[in-house]
Amino acid sequence: MVSNRLQSQIQFLAEADRLKQILRKTRLIGGSRLENSAEHSWHFALMALTLSEHAAEAIDVLRVLKMAILHDLVEIDAGDSFVYDAAAMKDKAEREQAAADRIFGLLPADQARDYRALWDEFEAQQTPEAKFAAAIDRLCGMLPNFYNSGGSWKEHQISADRVTQRNQPIGAGAPAIWELAEGWIAEAVASGWIVTEN
Amino acid sequence: MVSNRLQSQIQFLAEADRLKQILRKTRLIGGSRLENSAEHSWHFALMALTLSEHAAEAIDVLRVLKMAILHDLVEIDAGDSFVYDAAAMKDKAEREQAAADRIFGLLPADQARDYRALWDEFEAQQTPEAKFAAAIDRLCGMLPNFYNSGGSWKEHQISADRVTQRNQPIGAGAPAIWELAEGWIAEAVASGWIVTEN
Repeated sequence: MVSNRLQSQIQFLAEADRLKQILRKTRLIGGSRLENSAEHSWHFALMALTLSEHAAEAIDVLRVLKMAILHDLVEIDAGDSFVYDAAAMKDKAEREQAAADRIFGLLPADQARDYRALWDEFEAQQTPEAKFAAAIDRLCGMLPNFYNSGGSWKEHQISADRVTQRNQPIGAGAPAIWELAEGWIAEAVASGWIVTEN
Repeated sequence: MVSNRLQSQIQFLAEADRLKQILRKTRLIGGSRLENSAEHSWHFALMALTLSEHAAEAIDVLRVLKMAILHDLVEIDAGDSFVYDAAAMKDKAEREQAAADRIFGLLPADQARDYRALWDEFEAQQTPEAKFAAAIDRLCGMLPNFYNSGGSWKEHQISADRVTQRNQPIGAGAPAIWELAEGWIAEAVASGWIVTEN
């Protein structure tokens, strides 16, 4: 006899499959197609695991991995909001809160609470784990753009100033990684992929 | 000055991006396209996290998540081997060992050793963590096939006997989940999606 608890968990996991259909603005390295939020979440987890030694403070790696795995599930309802699109960013929080209520609400109550608390912690960016996770999430956007000679920065004419402003929270979570990322931005300008300001 | 260590880690993480282009035989729920191994690895991690209470023995969830995140990286070189294709399965181990040497070898030596040990542990399926991870990896194949009214089982005419034989290790890692999965196989036969034996 399969328990109601397991049935609820499976229903949540089947619903989660839809994250594979949510497209981001960044492309795969090589540029063949847009990246989706599920494969991004995997790359985020792999990056967090591999780069954890560069965190600014001592972190619980398990909690960071949980954040990476869960952080974008709200996009199933709320969609991906392009970080340089001011209009989309305006009501992002409201749309994502409603999505979190529905999607985590598919789970048994104790798990729904746990997952929601992890997502809230990630969004608030106050704990060492959330700051490091936010740094890695940003690095996930920067990596393909750098390897794709400007990628979505170039395509959407985002200046180096805006890229710096958007990504400098990397410094709070992982200073050595921000040093690397600043080098990428400088190289993007020097190579003529993006302009300094606009 | 960005360290050689961080540069090696970034090179590995950029190479890992290619996992997003490795296609499996299963389709997304709804059937729109084949699933790739990167988004599968994310779903595997989410399933392992959500279903960890059903593990047959006490497990270290962090180690299971690491296995989920790393387990398919070898497919970047070795490709995805369809589990019901005897020819592909024949030299799978050899191809994947060579891939593990090259891909994990991009990392600093200590991390290369750690990741390789986790991948070897997953492949050997001896520890409680590896048994649970193997159960969840199989569930990842079963879930979309069940939700897609037979999916790749139906498409490739895989009988219920073969599906059972392939997936029964789920029972060793997570008995309650195997009970659920056996119900799915019975329903697939009752619904005429697959035949009992062939």
